Amino acid sequence: MEIAWIGTGIMGAPMARNLMRAGHRLRVHNRTAKKAVALAAEGSEVIVAADPAAAAGGAEAVFMMVPDTPDVESVVARIAPALHKDQLVIDMSTIAPAAEHAIAERLAKAGVDYLDAPVSGGEAGAIDGTLTIMVGGAESAYKRAFPLFEKLGRRVTHMGPPGAGQMTKLANQVAVALTLEAAAEALALAESGGLDRARVLEAIGAGAAGSWQLSNLGPKIIAHDWRPGFFIKLIRKDLRLVADAARAGGLALPGLALMQSMFNAAAAFGHDLDGTQAVAAALDRLARLK
Amino acid sequence: MEIAWIGTGIMGAPMARNLMRAGHRLRVHNRTAKKAVALAAEGSEVIVAADPAAAAGGAEAVFMMVPDTPDVESVVARIAPALHKDQLVIDMSTIAPAAEHAIAERLAKAGVDYLDAPVSGGEAGAIDGTLTIMVGGAESAYKRAFPLFEKLGRRVTHMGPPGAGQMTKLANQVAVALTLEAAAEALALAESGGLDRARVLEAIGAGAAGSWQLSNLGPKIIAHDWRPGFFIKLIRKDLRLVADAARAGGLALPGLALMQSMFNAAAAFGHDLDGTQAVAAALDRLARLK
Repeated sequence: MEIAWIGTGIMGAPMARNLMRAGHRLRVHNRTAKKAVALAAEGSEVIVAADPAAAAGGAEAVFMMVPDTPDVESVVARIAPALHKDQLVIDMSTIAPAAEHAIAERLAKAGVDYLDAPVSGGEAGAIDGTLTIMVGGAESAYKRAFPLFEKLGRRVTHMGPPGAGQMTKLANQVAVALTLEAAAEALALAESGGLDRARVLEAIGAGAAGSWQLSNLGPKIIAHDWRPGFFIKLIRKDLRLVADAARAGGLALPGLALMQSMFNAAAAFGHDLDGTQAVAAALDRLARLK
Repeated sequence: MEIAWIGTGIMGAPMARNLMRAGHRLRVHNRTAKKAVALAAEGSEVIVAADPAAAAGGAEAVFMMVPDTPDVESVVARIAPALHKDQLVIDMSTIAPAAEHAIAERLAKAGVDYLDAPVSGGEAGAIDGTLTIMVGGAESAYKRAFPLFEKLGRRVTHMGPPGAGQMTKLANQVAVALTLEAAAEALALAESGGLDRARVLEAIGAGAAGSWQLSNLGPKIIAHDWRPGFFIKLIRKDLRLVADAARAGGLALPGLALMQSMFNAAAAFGHDLDGTQAVAAALDRLARLK
């Protein structure tokens, strides 16, 4: 299949690579051209497009994987004139659910199928093709995209109408943030009590306190290893989207508010381009009584 | 072995029963005698003792499973005159680490081995003998108690000196509380966004947002099933102990403070004798903007 891939960053490049390896022809574009050129150098079936419209024009399916809501809106504005009936456009970025709803409506008028399909699983999941993919949009478009999603992720779920994928991702992110805080506070308490924190992870990790965050980021917190799996900068963006969506749904979530403060503090302490687990470094400074 | 078991409540009774089934002779005592009598009726090798000292006097190992720090201190005060050299006393209640340290020191003077060995896993874990057991105290006492712990739990870890078991349990509890809030807020957001929450659990439960709390209590939150696995009343007590221990360690933990407020609110809304997952009912009332 002829596929356009717009956005070949940390996540987008390995995802596009998995489609390339599955035998698809790729037309790639990236705002910073160098990254797209590097990807194209890997395969004879990959060409670099000068702009998003040139990538999208001749493709059966068009993927976007860019940072934020305005980036998706800008790409859509640029490709819309080049799109034609029966094309399939899939946004795998994490952006506002309401924006996806508007885009889906706009493209539907041109006969273009549109899905929001944000992912969870980080760079490792993108490389291994084991991402969790949460999809919003029409059932027929979902069925059409499913064989492609299978090359990118392991758990693919159709969540409902346009925006439902993004809303699920936002629920995922608020859970991720608070579960990480749970790990950070438990380990801070353990350290203040003189415990061997690695042994604490072993003792409590498989029971009612257990979580992916505790098992996977707990050891990094103990080792003060702040290298990014997922940037503080990006979870701050995601939690802003969560807060917007919560407000639109009539909710002010107290744990969400706390985690916005914690990650903002982490950024203020210089950790914006570190991994989310660096929230433990912020906690270490904010929670000290002496 | 001749074993004294003091405290045959929701947790204590099934734990004592597992030792009985393993072939030990039990001398049981409970503040509300009726529960001890009911347990004794189950086996010919179980007798009811009129007071803690009468239970402890003739036993090789003495277990305590009572609600709070003052309860343990009161039992210890009553059994201490009856204890003799080489007896083993094991506290499986969840109480203040500092109190365990003082008790261990006091009993050591009489040649009595003492362990703090709080558990996680709730009533189901107590019944199935699959509890997580976190142990503080001397290595020799731990080795002596290990064959008994094996009848009660699956994951048994020696955490360090007296009080280390309790400190580990407190780290466990702060993680449990915040991870539960993560599940509650994610599901509240999902509901406000019109998602099928059961499908959300499926989509995100195995990834970076995954946790024991989300998988086990998420479905109960969705079903508004507030029946207790673990009482709000008891986690409020535990989080008070966490706050005391954190303060003693020079820490003011922001997520802990939030969760004390949340569970206090749940109690104020009438959920003190419901399960911890009823914090979602409190959230539902506290987080609404309209």
